[in-house]
Amino acid sequence: MNRYAIIGSGALGGLYGAMLAKSGHEVHFLLRSDFQHVAENGLKIESVWGDFEISHPHIYRDAREMPACDVTIIATKTTQNDSMIDLLAAPTSGGGVVLVLQNGLNIESNAVELVGHDRVYSGCCFLCSNKVGPGHIRHLDEGRIVFGRLENSADDIAKTIAGEMIAAGIPAKTTDDVAMVRWRKLMWNIPFNGLSVVLDSSTKQLIESEDAVALAIQLVDEVYAGATSIGIEIPADQKLATIESTRKMVPYDSSMRLDYLAGRQMEIEAIFDNPIAASQIEMPSVKMLRNQLAYLQSRNRS
Amino acid sequence: MNRYAIIGSGALGGLYGAMLAKSGHEVHFLLRSDFQHVAENGLKIESVWGDFEISHPHIYRDAREMPACDVTIIATKTTQNDSMIDLLAAPTSGGGVVLVLQNGLNIESNAVELVGHDRVYSGCCFLCSNKVGPGHIRHLDEGRIVFGRLENSADDIAKTIAGEMIAAGIPAKTTDDVAMVRWRKLMWNIPFNGLSVVLDSSTKQLIESEDAVALAIQLVDEVYAGATSIGIEIPADQKLATIESTRKMVPYDSSMRLDYLAGRQMEIEAIFDNPIAASQIEMPSVKMLRNQLAYLQSRNRS
Repeated sequence: MNRYAIIGSGALGGLYGAMLAKSGHEVHFLLRSDFQHVAENGLKIESVWGDFEISHPHIYRDAREMPACDVTIIATKTTQNDSMIDLLAAPTSGGGVVLVLQNGLNIESNAVELVGHDRVYSGCCFLCSNKVGPGHIRHLDEGRIVFGRLENSADDIAKTIAGEMIAAGIPAKTTDDVAMVRWRKLMWNIPFNGLSVVLDSSTKQLIESEDAVALAIQLVDEVYAGATSIGIEIPADQKLATIESTRKMVPYDSSMRLDYLAGRQMEIEAIFDNPIAASQIEMPSVKMLRNQLAYLQSRNRS
Repeated sequence: MNRYAIIGSGALGGLYGAMLAKSGHEVHFLLRSDFQHVAENGLKIESVWGDFEISHPHIYRDAREMPACDVTIIATKTTQNDSMIDLLAAPTSGGGVVLVLQNGLNIESNAVELVGHDRVYSGCCFLCSNKVGPGHIRHLDEGRIVFGRLENSADDIAKTIAGEMIAAGIPAKTTDDVAMVRWRKLMWNIPFNGLSVVLDSSTKQLIESEDAVALAIQLVDEVYAGATSIGIEIPADQKLATIESTRKMVPYDSSMRLDYLAGRQMEIEAIFDNPIAASQIEMPSVKMLRNQLAYLQSRNRS
């Protein structure tokens, strides 16, 4: 049984880490502001998969005190990636692998720098989950993880991790095309994260409006064309599926909107700048939405 | 000396009508909600051209009671154009001309239907002016009117009107290329009206932000390309001039933003839909901004 480290124990890392802990894995959680609360009260999970608590999780305020783990899951916001190398040193010191579960593109570079390409796995979560209080996570809908080796393959280590996740009740899947999975996820993140901030709306408000759906379709088409321009083949039916799956989603505040409303930095670089730079075609609508977000962020923080 | 009718005595019609009245013209103002106030208090103009009042203007609540005039100026919002024919019947009944001073494209059709192409003149105002209270107009900056015959010529009637305006202190100019002037104005209206609503900002806030200026440039370039696609030749230096003139402008709330904040309908059709339909090229950023405005308007009114 693999031993796991969770770097970033919020809506995503907190949920998956708690699921793994519940199924008997040794899981070590890095916490910041919630440390004291969780030390006293444990982790509280409300989930469509069933509610539960982890009363006495292994928790750390300082990553340097974490033990060497087999799998270190990065589940922070990408806006914190600059300090990632310091956080990874201890849990990866025994030769374990890193699994990056953040949104966006080109977000693995710090992990690669520390442990090398071979030990980095990368994936996307299709998940509606919010942290609603200290150590308190509310998982509303979906929850799939799709991941593989960074170098576009799904090896035995990936398959073992996926197997352990499935045994823990997490719908996990390996892929030999991480790049495709990341662009597929961007087809949702770019329109729905971006528009939810600029139009100050939940995904439900957006999907119920003809005008907002027209906007989302325009953005989805551009992201799809951007992926195609660099040889990434996403099945064409995924364009419509992006819209239709959002129709079926529970009302949800995107993580970017929550960041904006809380005055935190938004993941503009990972979700917008890096795809714009990677694409071989102009993506004018994506670029426009990016600049609108940058404007709002800069005003929000001043 | 021409006799003038002003249909829509707000920030624009009220200012120009009052300037003409002050210089000795007989000017007849159509008013709605401000009628009673103006009947008792007259029109009050605060202007960079000098403050003044018109104590006893000729005012009407019902357009059918207006006398036949030589020049009927349309200065309402385009959102009221559906009822325009009823408003024009009396003042144009003596064979006078109509001068349409609204923003946007293809906004002269009701005037043309009533009095025919030959008697319709069309132009744009480059004007920062707000109505700040009943019959109370604050003119902050600029003020140029550029107009000509709808059929792209500047005839003697146009020249006479321009001469009278200049004599009244209004910087007026005729053009034999109204279509070019309208697209030139759209190069400002589309980015700055649109972004001021979506980003909830004054023109000053926008122009001081690098991100918002990047947005404006992207939109200006698209509108310029749209004009070019249908054979309209705008001098290329007007792209930069659109941005630079806004830098020098006083802090200003665009009319579209004021409409939005007051819960009134925005001029999306005239300023966005009609140019999008007229252009022979895709204008993806313009289309995106249009859909964002449509979304916000529909939410604002529900």
